[in-house]
Amino acid sequence: MRVLTGLQPSGKLHLGNYFSAIKKILDYQSKEELFLFIANLHALTTFRSKEDLKEYTLGCAIDLLALGVDPNKTVFWVQSDVPQVTELTWYLSQSITVSQLQLAHSFKDKVAKGFVPGAGLFTYPILMASDILLFSAEKVPVGKDQKQHLEFARDIAERFNTQFGSVLTIPEPDIDENTAIVPGVDGAKMSKSYNNTIDFFGTEKEIKKKVMSIVSDSKAIEEPKDPKESVIFQIHSLFLTNSEKESQKEKYTKGGFGYGDLKKDLLESILSHFAPFRSKREELTQNLDYVHSVLKLGKEKAVEVAEKKLDEVRSTLGIYPY
Amino acid sequence: MRVLTGLQPSGKLHLGNYFSAIKKILDYQSKEELFLFIANLHALTTFRSKEDLKEYTLGCAIDLLALGVDPNKTVFWVQSDVPQVTELTWYLSQSITVSQLQLAHSFKDKVAKGFVPGAGLFTYPILMASDILLFSAEKVPVGKDQKQHLEFARDIAERFNTQFGSVLTIPEPDIDENTAIVPGVDGAKMSKSYNNTIDFFGTEKEIKKKVMSIVSDSKAIEEPKDPKESVIFQIHSLFLTNSEKESQKEKYTKGGFGYGDLKKDLLESILSHFAPFRSKREELTQNLDYVHSVLKLGKEKAVEVAEKKLDEVRSTLGIYPY
Repeated sequence: MRVLTGLQPSGKLHLGNYFSAIKKILDYQSKEELFLFIANLHALTTFRSKEDLKEYTLGCAIDLLALGVDPNKTVFWVQSDVPQVTELTWYLSQSITVSQLQLAHSFKDKVAKGFVPGAGLFTYPILMASDILLFSAEKVPVGKDQKQHLEFARDIAERFNTQFGSVLTIPEPDIDENTAIVPGVDGAKMSKSYNNTIDFFGTEKEIKKKVMSIVSDSKAIEEPKDPKESVIFQIHSLFLTNSEKESQKEKYTKGGFGYGDLKKDLLESILSHFAPFRSKREELTQNLDYVHSVLKLGKEKAVEVAEKKLDEVRSTLGIYPY
Repeated sequence: MRVLTGLQPSGKLHLGNYFSAIKKILDYQSKEELFLFIANLHALTTFRSKEDLKEYTLGCAIDLLALGVDPNKTVFWVQSDVPQVTELTWYLSQSITVSQLQLAHSFKDKVAKGFVPGAGLFTYPILMASDILLFSAEKVPVGKDQKQHLEFARDIAERFNTQFGSVLTIPEPDIDENTAIVPGVDGAKMSKSYNNTIDFFGTEKEIKKKVMSIVSDSKAIEEPKDPKESVIFQIHSLFLTNSEKESQKEKYTKGGFGYGDLKKDLLESILSHFAPFRSKREELTQNLDYVHSVLKLGKEKAVEVAEKKLDEVRSTLGIYPY
């Protein structure tokens, strides 16, 4: 089964990303035919600076490779390296109406927030459909906020197939209800926009500072503590086996360990869990030629698949051969 | 000065096309650096069938070459052969708002006519801006109906240059107020949508039938006729030198020539004017390899210019190199 997923390059990865998106990607990689891309074209709709976009794009590639994305198993590329996706976007634009696009929640939300919407923000669901349909993805993992966009992709494909000829694969959504919800240091959902993240590729000092800032109540060292109520424990448990979880729980319930100690335990777990990834990342950072060669290989594989599909589409439309 | 213009492939050319668009194209070719493309991507917004689109695209290329487009002077290509234009379209989509696009007359007109607008129809001005900006056109000939779209292209370029960096050339419109208005066989403006055209690449029999169907009053052969009032004369004068015009006028005013005779004169002028083009067209139709090789050359030249500009744009955005 061909699974496709894209990740926007948005700076440093945090534990929330890791335990939802990244874990899932690695899981797909081991079980399915995975197409994975860094969505730098999409990132333009929330552009900050060219320096950021460059740094985040390459950084995202390095991060994913460090975390275990294997270019021999997974087709892994940077979205803009396969501009065929923009050509298909134009063809697909004939198969969705303006009124449909106006119904997009993400668009309506941004407008409601007072954002002056650019055309890119408005047509972004067509580019997303193109990402999916160009590679004949059969399954696309989507969070709740992306369910509607996947519906658009299905609609577009169905309409295109009816209007012009059956060449597009209708993708199925893979909605994961069990995705771990990772709390941030303030207890709310960990998210860059809340500024409550623990970025596991930061320096040890940065990670320590973030872990030490996790909210807790004011129970004294000797008092028993409730692990279920503790954000420290909630984050920590993501790293622990069941038996490790039990013994850590005991430290909370029996008393004698302050939150500072419990945070140190968490810090140790984070550092030891990510140690191999961090050193792999360091290695890749010293070897950018290798990273670029991996992305070039991914580009070549992706272009081959894309051109084959585009040829079918062009011929169905009478665009080429003429 | 670099001039750019595109022609939608829409079937057989008629005298209206010839005396406005085509004459102008040939005039530019002799004086300026001309970039000329067959707009088959735009044609998708009014798609009929893939067979039509294929036939019209190649037919349009043959027509233009037969009429004198010289691939050694003019960069001449089929729009879809340079898909770079769709990549730039995405980048430009960040520099125009949804509200601006909603103001487009051509869009509002179609909506007013009860057309359910597809996203392609809505975003078509961005693709048109991309056509222009990708090739750094300095001058773009526009009819009245396209003035606003050229304004969009200028706005987009100005905003892009401000947001991201000055890489796009601001195009100037070339609004020709003196374009000949060619009447159709019914006296209204000659236009495919009025079904009143004289298609000069039709068979002689078809052309004759159309010329013979030109409206006239019911004056008898011997009566004097007013050339200014005659559609036959209005069309005929497009083919005549000033002195030829005078002697033809005499035939009207002195009487003794019926409208049938005057139509025969016009038919003769049409056939003799287009004779070399018609035989050139016949020759090209027998030599499609040559036509394809010309379009391939045009594609190569256009791609070179396009890629150079796109590289600047990508780098300005931080898309590539990353």
